[in-house]
Amino acid sequence: MLPFKTLLKIDKNSAEAVFKQLASQLVLLIQKGILLPDMQLPSTRLLAADLDLHRKTIMAAYNTLIAEDWLISKERKEYRVSTLLPIIKPRTYASKAKSSYKAEPAIIFDGMEHVPSFPQINANPKVIIDDGFPDVNIFPVERVSAEYKRLLTHQTLKKTNTSWNIGGSPVIKETLTSFLNDTRGLNIETENLMVTRGAQMAIYLAASLIIRPGDKVLVTDTSFFLADAVFRQLGAQLVTVPVDHEGADVDAIADALENNNIKLLYIIPHHHHPTTVTMSSERRAKLLELIRTHRLAVIEDDYDYDFQYQYSPYLPLASGSHDGHVIYIGSLTKVLGSNFRLGYMIATPGFLQSAVKLKMLIDLRSDALMEGTVASLMQSGEFSRFIMKANKLYGYRCDYASNLITNELGHLVEFKKPQGGMALWLKFNENYPLSGIINKASASGLQLVGVPYLKGKDLAYDAIRFGFASLNEHELEFAVEVLKKITPSK
Amino acid sequence: MLPFKTLLKIDKNSAEAVFKQLASQLVLLIQKGILLPDMQLPSTRLLAADLDLHRKTIMAAYNTLIAEDWLISKERKEYRVSTLLPIIKPRTYASKAKSSYKAEPAIIFDGMEHVPSFPQINANPKVIIDDGFPDVNIFPVERVSAEYKRLLTHQTLKKTNTSWNIGGSPVIKETLTSFLNDTRGLNIETENLMVTRGAQMAIYLAASLIIRPGDKVLVTDTSFFLADAVFRQLGAQLVTVPVDHEGADVDAIADALENNNIKLLYIIPHHHHPTTVTMSSERRAKLLELIRTHRLAVIEDDYDYDFQYQYSPYLPLASGSHDGHVIYIGSLTKVLGSNFRLGYMIATPGFLQSAVKLKMLIDLRSDALMEGTVASLMQSGEFSRFIMKANKLYGYRCDYASNLITNELGHLVEFKKPQGGMALWLKFNENYPLSGIINKASASGLQLVGVPYLKGKDLAYDAIRFGFASLNEHELEFAVEVLKKITPSK
Repeated sequence: MLPFKTLLKIDKNSAEAVFKQLASQLVLLIQKGILLPDMQLPSTRLLAADLDLHRKTIMAAYNTLIAEDWLISKERKEYRVSTLLPIIKPRTYASKAKSSYKAEPAIIFDGMEHVPSFPQINANPKVIIDDGFPDVNIFPVERVSAEYKRLLTHQTLKKTNTSWNIGGSPVIKETLTSFLNDTRGLNIETENLMVTRGAQMAIYLAASLIIRPGDKVLVTDTSFFLADAVFRQLGAQLVTVPVDHEGADVDAIADALENNNIKLLYIIPHHHHPTTVTMSSERRAKLLELIRTHRLAVIEDDYDYDFQYQYSPYLPLASGSHDGHVIYIGSLTKVLGSNFRLGYMIATPGFLQSAVKLKMLIDLRSDALMEGTVASLMQSGEFSRFIMKANKLYGYRCDYASNLITNELGHLVEFKKPQGGMALWLKFNENYPLSGIINKASASGLQLVGVPYLKGKDLAYDAIRFGFASLNEHELEFAVEVLKKITPSK
Repeated sequence: MLPFKTLLKIDKNSAEAVFKQLASQLVLLIQKGILLPDMQLPSTRLLAADLDLHRKTIMAAYNTLIAEDWLISKERKEYRVSTLLPIIKPRTYASKAKSSYKAEPAIIFDGMEHVPSFPQINANPKVIIDDGFPDVNIFPVERVSAEYKRLLTHQTLKKTNTSWNIGGSPVIKETLTSFLNDTRGLNIETENLMVTRGAQMAIYLAASLIIRPGDKVLVTDTSFFLADAVFRQLGAQLVTVPVDHEGADVDAIADALENNNIKLLYIIPHHHHPTTVTMSSERRAKLLELIRTHRLAVIEDDYDYDFQYQYSPYLPLASGSHDGHVIYIGSLTKVLGSNFRLGYMIATPGFLQSAVKLKMLIDLRSDALMEGTVASLMQSGEFSRFIMKANKLYGYRCDYASNLITNELGHLVEFKKPQGGMALWLKFNENYPLSGIINKASASGLQLVGVPYLKGKDLAYDAIRFGFASLNEHELEFAVEVLKKITPSK
């Protein structure tokens, strides 16, 4: 007899009935080929003794598996693995290779060299400095679990199964349209909105519809690196304008429009990524005029509008007068955390119809359960209360981190406290180069996971985004202490 | 005083405390601009009387909102809306347009004309014939809810927030690798697998890495229309080979390879979409040889391998000897339903590294909660039992639908019972053209939502996929009865 006592791990404290656990684990043994077709199983009496279980439990498990066609029984005594198991015994028609997937390179493909690889996270750092994420400790886990449970019914699943809500289910489109109109002074209808997997997918879809290889795209220097990478992937040539303490230089944009055939402008007027600068009202008005005059297609990326620590934020460009030229992109992910990738794109109905068709080729369905959950939170007012709560917390942390860094690291880094958002833009003193700091910090339990912006091609200084929103006072203090202790190494 | 009795809808039977409901609804009134900044609220006594609630309930709601900075209170008597509400009072810097998003066309963009629009579902049809979906009535909703609840903790969210599992979290990669090795005779490691939003995203990613504008892609005539659309979107030229009762014509593939510079072959050897034919073992062996000889890049789409009604299915091409040239794509969506878009791509590690980079530009994170839930079901053996259960049910329905259609519609449609999958391929008699049938069926409560394949350019007959898996006997009988009663209209 096989060593069932070792092979079968039964947890008597589990909520799952023991006979069901037993049945599932026997299925795994069959699937793994440990129990082979036609192999005889031990009698219920024998297995019961071996596993120290009641015989009736074994019988219940065997009977379940007989009903499901995994086992067959002869005269209710002898139990054998079925010889007719569709999912475990495929026919081979060619001598099997050890693994064909060791051969490399096999296919000729785009190596994606222009896209940076992602930073690896070390095992269990004490504190992680991200580049601007929410604090998931305030996430309403119980409320969301309950809502998910309420929605996860056969009826909901059936409805989702047969509807094609590629750009979002009706309930999230209606609720989100209303939320955006209320909070951002937009004046849109549901036909102006589609839902995407995060803002990133919205950027990809919008850019793919507009850009053809060789087209010129105007971006700030520097800009959000994953947007730059999308434009490069689509074959665009990037033309840059500087960004200063008032945001993107709009005079430079005007010049670029005169001197180049610009197909698209990508811009982040609130809390510019990476530099966190908010564009002034004068420049916004001037930029809207340029957009209208030049009939300039614009992607306005407003990824963390919801976090504003100085009262009365500016309206997005999208809420101004732009004759439909501003594609407005945002995300709820910065509110709810990375697990809830709910981005959106606002544009004219015709543009969105094409965007939905392109999305269909990439991601056929939206996530109806997540959308339903978020819509319910919005409809009840809880979502707005949650944002207010987060705003208060992050505003406090913005002050706390700013004071701490000014006092403790003022001689090493330079930054300007942002009007909102979730990160500081730390410029490193040239005696204190970032490249030498990251590894040393990591060795002390502090991991910097934001992309390091190193002095060189584009920048005159080393810099990194220091996300403060996700860290409490102790974590902020630990981070600053580690950074302070690191000896500059040139 | 505002008509609060009408404006505030309190549900005393809700699980949510009344004071919390009240607080959230007052926030919505503030956000909607019904309660304006500095506006005085009714006294607790007055509002309590108006709403027929206890005064302490009103006080609890007001105090909650004071703590959250929505209200301010003077001497604990007078309650006013705060004048400092960040998320509701943005500054405008330009005269506001009514809505700039009415202007069309504004931006020059790809109209995506080559992609068909999606069929609209009528309001509440009695029966929907899909093109091959699972029956969500057998979906284990309680088990999945419980698992989701178990995973949705601050700890899990924190982990997800700071890890970059673009191609799937470690747990789903390990579990799925093992599942595919067990069920499909693959011999892969986790480095050979990435997770995507459904098979569709995997097709898009793989094709994007391989195809450059003008490249020739070999497909069957007909083929899965959303794959064709992806290739066209990427600028490929489609070269076609016929598909007959043994699957794609491999001799024609050999000819095409001799006569054309083919960059990629897209093929569905199991239950070909749309025709449901399974490729014979002889042709599979021959095709593998062609792949090796020509070093031909192949996308093998195996979207519903898990459903096989004749015992011992063929192994996928991917499990044979192909020197890494076969990119194997599949999905758990056909098992779990459209809400759970969990596709995967199997390829060499180098190819997948590029695919992950491209995915990062489109969809930055995978869905860790869904992945954790599915992994847990797989690890316990419940997933395999679920597939077995579904297999038995769908196999029965395949027989039932086939017999019914043969008996009742044999004079109008032609089909061959498939070896597996979830749909029949019904070819319509030329006296019974599909275009006249769809609307008439819809009027009788039967909606055909699969894409109709109409006689013309590619096909010598009208045809549609008739999904049987999601329909019980009564629904199948209703569908066939409606189709039978429709008078042919030429």
